[in-house]
Amino acid sequence: MSSDRLIYLPLGGAGEIGMNCYVYGYGKPGQERLIVVDLGVTFPDMDSSPGVDLILPDITWLKENRNRIEAVFITHAHEDHVGAVGHTFEDLGAPIYARAFTANLARQKLNEFGVEGKAVRTVSKWPETVTVGPFTVGFLPISHSIPESSGLVIDSPAGRVIHSGDFKLDTTPLVGEPWDPELWAEVSKEGVKALVCDSTNVFSQHPGRSEAEVGPNVEKLVAEAPHMVVATTFASNVARVKTLAEAADRAGRSICLMGRAMRRMIEASIETGVLTGFPKVIGPEDASAIPRENLMLIVTGSQGERRAASAQLARGKYHGMTLKEGDLFLFSSKTIPGNERGVIRIMNQLSEQGVDVVDDSNGLYHVSGHANRPDLETLQDVVQPQMVIPMHGEHRHLREHVKISQRRGRKGVLAVNGMMIDLSGNEPTVAEYIDTGRTYLDGSVQIGALDGIVRDRLRMAMNGHVLVTVIIDEDDTPLGEPWCELMGLAETGRSRVPLSDILEEDLSQFLGRAGDKTLTDDDKLEEGMRRVVRQTCQNEIGKKPEVTVVVSRLM
Amino acid sequence: MSSDRLIYLPLGGAGEIGMNCYVYGYGKPGQERLIVVDLGVTFPDMDSSPGVDLILPDITWLKENRNRIEAVFITHAHEDHVGAVGHTFEDLGAPIYARAFTANLARQKLNEFGVEGKAVRTVSKWPETVTVGPFTVGFLPISHSIPESSGLVIDSPAGRVIHSGDFKLDTTPLVGEPWDPELWAEVSKEGVKALVCDSTNVFSQHPGRSEAEVGPNVEKLVAEAPHMVVATTFASNVARVKTLAEAADRAGRSICLMGRAMRRMIEASIETGVLTGFPKVIGPEDASAIPRENLMLIVTGSQGERRAASAQLARGKYHGMTLKEGDLFLFSSKTIPGNERGVIRIMNQLSEQGVDVVDDSNGLYHVSGHANRPDLETLQDVVQPQMVIPMHGEHRHLREHVKISQRRGRKGVLAVNGMMIDLSGNEPTVAEYIDTGRTYLDGSVQIGALDGIVRDRLRMAMNGHVLVTVIIDEDDTPLGEPWCELMGLAETGRSRVPLSDILEEDLSQFLGRAGDKTLTDDDKLEEGMRRVVRQTCQNEIGKKPEVTVVVSRLM
Repeated sequence: MSSDRLIYLPLGGAGEIGMNCYVYGYGKPGQERLIVVDLGVTFPDMDSSPGVDLILPDITWLKENRNRIEAVFITHAHEDHVGAVGHTFEDLGAPIYARAFTANLARQKLNEFGVEGKAVRTVSKWPETVTVGPFTVGFLPISHSIPESSGLVIDSPAGRVIHSGDFKLDTTPLVGEPWDPELWAEVSKEGVKALVCDSTNVFSQHPGRSEAEVGPNVEKLVAEAPHMVVATTFASNVARVKTLAEAADRAGRSICLMGRAMRRMIEASIETGVLTGFPKVIGPEDASAIPRENLMLIVTGSQGERRAASAQLARGKYHGMTLKEGDLFLFSSKTIPGNERGVIRIMNQLSEQGVDVVDDSNGLYHVSGHANRPDLETLQDVVQPQMVIPMHGEHRHLREHVKISQRRGRKGVLAVNGMMIDLSGNEPTVAEYIDTGRTYLDGSVQIGALDGIVRDRLRMAMNGHVLVTVIIDEDDTPLGEPWCELMGLAETGRSRVPLSDILEEDLSQFLGRAGDKTLTDDDKLEEGMRRVVRQTCQNEIGKKPEVTVVVSRLM
Repeated sequence: MSSDRLIYLPLGGAGEIGMNCYVYGYGKPGQERLIVVDLGVTFPDMDSSPGVDLILPDITWLKENRNRIEAVFITHAHEDHVGAVGHTFEDLGAPIYARAFTANLARQKLNEFGVEGKAVRTVSKWPETVTVGPFTVGFLPISHSIPESSGLVIDSPAGRVIHSGDFKLDTTPLVGEPWDPELWAEVSKEGVKALVCDSTNVFSQHPGRSEAEVGPNVEKLVAEAPHMVVATTFASNVARVKTLAEAADRAGRSICLMGRAMRRMIEASIETGVLTGFPKVIGPEDASAIPRENLMLIVTGSQGERRAASAQLARGKYHGMTLKEGDLFLFSSKTIPGNERGVIRIMNQLSEQGVDVVDDSNGLYHVSGHANRPDLETLQDVVQPQMVIPMHGEHRHLREHVKISQRRGRKGVLAVNGMMIDLSGNEPTVAEYIDTGRTYLDGSVQIGALDGIVRDRLRMAMNGHVLVTVIIDEDDTPLGEPWCELMGLAETGRSRVPLSDILEEDLSQFLGRAGDKTLTDDDKLEEGMRRVVRQTCQNEIGKKPEVTVVVSRLM
């Protein structure tokens, strides 16, 4: 019988940026007691997931092992770390631990699912710890682009693991705790088995810049702006929102926060005490009475989201506010890859309104929340782990992070989603491969990414959809003509007569030629008619559509 | 009766980057004789144009005025300038003028439509000119990222206009003519009414860099690579392809060009004499016999196109070649906004194969083909035009370009697609607004972007599609039960029984309740059933699908 082991299993976030979900286990193989670190979401796109509302990690394995789960720990309140707590709570049934600010937002998410907030337990920062099963876990403060981001110190009989969470090394983060190398060295000094580490910015060669660098640039920009100023950033970047608000305040401008997420984040920050001294804000209903040159809006939608405040302002009006010629619109943000089109659309709409757009292309108005390569190296030097396991990255990030670790003489482990790593020995080994994937929240139901549902949508979008109905009478003879409806297809093609007429004619001929063997067999009949439709469409319009055939038999 | 006037009318490219099509006219209002400058395409995406093959400018206005068109001039052979010549030739029926390299590629495009190559007439560079109707036009060489890019000198009785084409100010472009400020000054010295000018890089603050800067960096990289090297760039960037090939040659590597566009471009360049001294290349069939460390592939697909050589290599195999651990893959290119996801997908697939990816993030392996802001200012200083009309840009680029022109004391005209500008007087004025838009090539047919066809595809992709059939007998009574087929929708929802069963049950109830007024009226019946389906789906799965109802009446 094998002895106890310590395992690490990413179910989301290792091989992608987003949808973070990591599992640690300790115990006999197959009976390890488990903790889950983060339950995040990622966002759909038209290319791969049209119509989908949200993408969650596939937690089938966790559900199957539900009785082994001791607890869930959330490192910080970004959607890609906390977004799935509500959708998965019932399936996992485990208590959720987080620091106050994160817990505040996690509770709101649970409430939306009718779960009481007490399912989330607030933990203070290190040296406070929580013991669950064989694990003792503490929240080690570190700087990031949201308040109270924390690394986790995960102790088990097999030793100490540090899970970095998302982080940067910022000694002046403005809101939240600064990077404290002495604290991290102290925690690490008795030996760290593994550092499981954020890889987002591993390709950025220069040391990261502090949040404090943004302030003076924004202040100058806002002070010199002749008309109204609108600034957008991530609502959760509370330090940045504060910087923007202070710039407005110093320029004698009234501040109006717009967008639900923006107000919710600031409220949560104030409620939990992480944000103090935030300037006075006014509501949109009062903003229109303020002279425009004395006003600054701080709004959601920095990623071009169509329903957010930025997009609505760019299209015309939001809560009674409109933009005018000469106004200034600041993107105090970077565009996440994939969101470029949405952001550019807004910039052009703003341009059409005569609004001057300033973005971060000159590096003045935004800094990243993630550690760059030299910072990753610094953290390794402070923690001195036996091995580095990169997470929070696409494959290319994880691979590069392994390479820089190895170059520094450390073991690096490239573990992607589903790869269960045994950390017990001196050499990490792959213990098992677990099926993982993505679960789509689609309307109010969860569907599997590979269920074929979204594939059918993509096919209809690419190829259009033809539906054919035919009635077969009691003598297995077609009654009347088959009928075609087209959706998403050109109405006429090469013959310059309606495509549906040509299809119906070709289908009638097919039925006329069809023998009893076909007419009495729904499958054969449908397949034959489908082939006729696809061939005729190919000839007429150069496309082979999706085809649905409905055969109605009179009995 | 009004006197003759000179007009400028962009039909594509002014308000977007892509799909360039500009019209100049001279004559009595409404009777101007016309020339068309460039007939380009742009490319579809899933967000707005799923299933579409290519996007062309809407040339309805040109077709309506076909008898006024004297000629088409193509500035250079990029797809966004020449891509639509084949699709539009029959509708316009005008001769096409271009320089030799561009003409070679334009002829290939016409041949694909069964049009003889003699429709394209080759013109030598300035001082050669072509006189068509009231216009005399010459091709003024300028550097860009493709050979023989040219500005057009357009003379009419109303004066000289210079249409810049796409350009950069490169005195060492390696292939094609260098920027020659003395030539451009000479051409401009008797006065230029308007400079119609490329705006692509108006937001780039530093002067543009020369193509020659790339060579030494690539050479070093290739020389130091231990295993096989694969490099991708735009096939049409012949100078870059030559730089890559020469780096391979100097490192003693055999060169294999992969991808049809890559071979076609190099062939056209050699045939027309713009490319000389290109190193010897081998075919893919011979490449596999070469030791990998002595081989370099130069391949298509720098923008992540799924069918191009890069994507196929990243997925596994292309023409018998595969990648191996430690190979180097160079993106000697930048990613056009909107293509990020495709490029990143390839990078991660390469990472999974252990291939080291190098891109242009450090600025070493790519330079832009467009003039940056200081270069735009330089061109204005050389040409000294009365007014600047920015083109080849989104609204934000055009607006910024107008601003920098005005700051230099020149008139700037913000003219977007469809805005006909009268250039005759000292002040440009808007003469008319023409309906413009986009035409989709969809399979083998052209459809309008606003025809509703693609909108229906997007709706099916977002919402799924339910089709309902019902048979009504001779007495206006439903015969049997209605039948539902779902496409792109979850099979079960809240009730945990098949959604189609619930839909059929609810529809039966609806029919049972329906009176004669409904049952005898197809429109009412369809509308009622559609409403039932949407409501039931909303309850069950939280989505309102597209619904097609087919009512079959027995007579």
